[in-house]
Amino acid sequence: MYKRKRIVIALGGNALGNTLPEQMIAVKSTAQALCDLIEDGHQVVVVHGNGPQVGMINNAMAALSREDPNQPNTPLSVCVAMSQAYIGYDLQNALREELRKRGFVRTPVVTVVTQVRVDPDDPAFENPSKPIGHFMTKEQAEHAEKAYGYIMKEDAGRGYRRVVASPKPVEIVEQDAINSLVDANKIVICCGGGGIPVTLQGDHLKGASAVIDKDFASCLLAEKLGADMLIILTAVEKVAINFGKENEEWLEDLTVEQAKKYIEEGHFAAGSMLPKVQAAVDFASSGPDRTAMITHLNKARNGIMGKTGTRIHL
Amino acid sequence: MYKRKRIVIALGGNALGNTLPEQMIAVKSTAQALCDLIEDGHQVVVVHGNGPQVGMINNAMAALSREDPNQPNTPLSVCVAMSQAYIGYDLQNALREELRKRGFVRTPVVTVVTQVRVDPDDPAFENPSKPIGHFMTKEQAEHAEKAYGYIMKEDAGRGYRRVVASPKPVEIVEQDAINSLVDANKIVICCGGGGIPVTLQGDHLKGASAVIDKDFASCLLAEKLGADMLIILTAVEKVAINFGKENEEWLEDLTVEQAKKYIEEGHFAAGSMLPKVQAAVDFASSGPDRTAMITHLNKARNGIMGKTGTRIHL
Repeated sequence: MYKRKRIVIALGGNALGNTLPEQMIAVKSTAQALCDLIEDGHQVVVVHGNGPQVGMINNAMAALSREDPNQPNTPLSVCVAMSQAYIGYDLQNALREELRKRGFVRTPVVTVVTQVRVDPDDPAFENPSKPIGHFMTKEQAEHAEKAYGYIMKEDAGRGYRRVVASPKPVEIVEQDAINSLVDANKIVICCGGGGIPVTLQGDHLKGASAVIDKDFASCLLAEKLGADMLIILTAVEKVAINFGKENEEWLEDLTVEQAKKYIEEGHFAAGSMLPKVQAAVDFASSGPDRTAMITHLNKARNGIMGKTGTRIHL
Repeated sequence: MYKRKRIVIALGGNALGNTLPEQMIAVKSTAQALCDLIEDGHQVVVVHGNGPQVGMINNAMAALSREDPNQPNTPLSVCVAMSQAYIGYDLQNALREELRKRGFVRTPVVTVVTQVRVDPDDPAFENPSKPIGHFMTKEQAEHAEKAYGYIMKEDAGRGYRRVVASPKPVEIVEQDAINSLVDANKIVICCGGGGIPVTLQGDHLKGASAVIDKDFASCLLAEKLGADMLIILTAVEKVAINFGKENEEWLEDLTVEQAKKYIEEGHFAAGSMLPKVQAAVDFASSGPDRTAMITHLNKARNGIMGKTGTRIHL
């Protein structure tokens, strides 16, 4: 048996599905993949995205305020908070159930409502670009701009969507509590959706109209937890250069320097593989004993064994 | 200085307000009351109700599913989960801010998504009686019965409301993680709204269409945490017998036996003071070093000092 590792796992969209019924099914196979690692003796901390879920909650709160004029519109940060419990509840139960099936009857799983501080001067606030929620007509978009102060952008002929800033995470507010739980051998689900974005105003933490990339939040979490590995799970088994071209090449082992060179050469798509590779590079850069891996949800166990996936290290 | 106590505090509806803007104001004074106890050296664990909030979230999800036929109705248990993050996020920040104002710059506050197991054979499931959500017309009520399987009841001439079961809490699923956090001196917010109600089906925890009384959940939590005190905060400073009558008498110090006698005599209103007194009696019965207190939100500090409130003990 190899060394027991402390591993932060960032789950991609395919781990959760897009609706509640989809989520209840998806979390079952996600739980199997995660329990494989727990069964191998690793300490696992789970971060997940929340794109479709926070969009759905945002839509629900907006629908309520249309029906009931006494109901003010709900800030995005509050919707992120709600999405953490919405997802965490299902995910922790699927994990608990799978653990019990495998004989781990006393391994607790816990979801921590997590805020992540961002810098109010982050340049991302100058250029909101992350689309959230559903598509709108031009008229609906104009109304949303006037009524709620949303920034709306036309999206490739498919209609208008709200865009928000995606600033970099600076500090995980509940880091200390998360450390205590991980040290006490609980399976922790935290930083859901990249965390509830907040900025510091004096002693006050103020919710920000933003979404934090869950891969960057996972990277920060892994660094502060002193994790051995950051595993970013997605829909492909390996990262490729020249993706989709004749000279496409799947990558298995990369130094930080090589990965940075490929980033500069523009091999990775913004909003898709690029933030994953960047987060992996950031984590791997933080120490010689730290490895980042990008692979498919169902390949994590084989990836840790060195049989597949793309690993990045110093 | 008296002995440092481990105290579970159950917050009543007046601690949170009914809407998000009300909540953001209410949590500030709630935080002051809680920080008074922390400043006095006590270890504080916070439980809160969620009546208006879970109703609002339930309404929002129902509004969404009316607008979008692809969006299935959201189970009540999921709405309870969301309400825990919705409230916890605001409450933990108000606490954090107040703690920092008083110089406690490194005291972490954390919200734990909490499930509470109930017995599927609890007689409460035979007689759902706890109203939740908004009032409906007769037509809306009939639709809700057909479309969602809700049980609707006419409410004192004011319209129809959904009623759900309010079973007794049997086990706090995340008890072990909560213990770890409290032992590590974090301020923990948990069991929000009495906890997400679940029943055990084999290895699976299934959400129940129910709401658990937050005072009974607080009692169970306090027992399992080995708390010294359970403080149930509400809108009155003391409990009364012959309430509103000529011979009304405010109570200061009660044995469990006396309290049980007053319960039998019917002094306390069901759905109001009765569950609070019952939960207080249950906790006080669990050991000679355990005291329960019922008082006003702003009187907790004086209550612990023995200056006000109604205390119940063996």
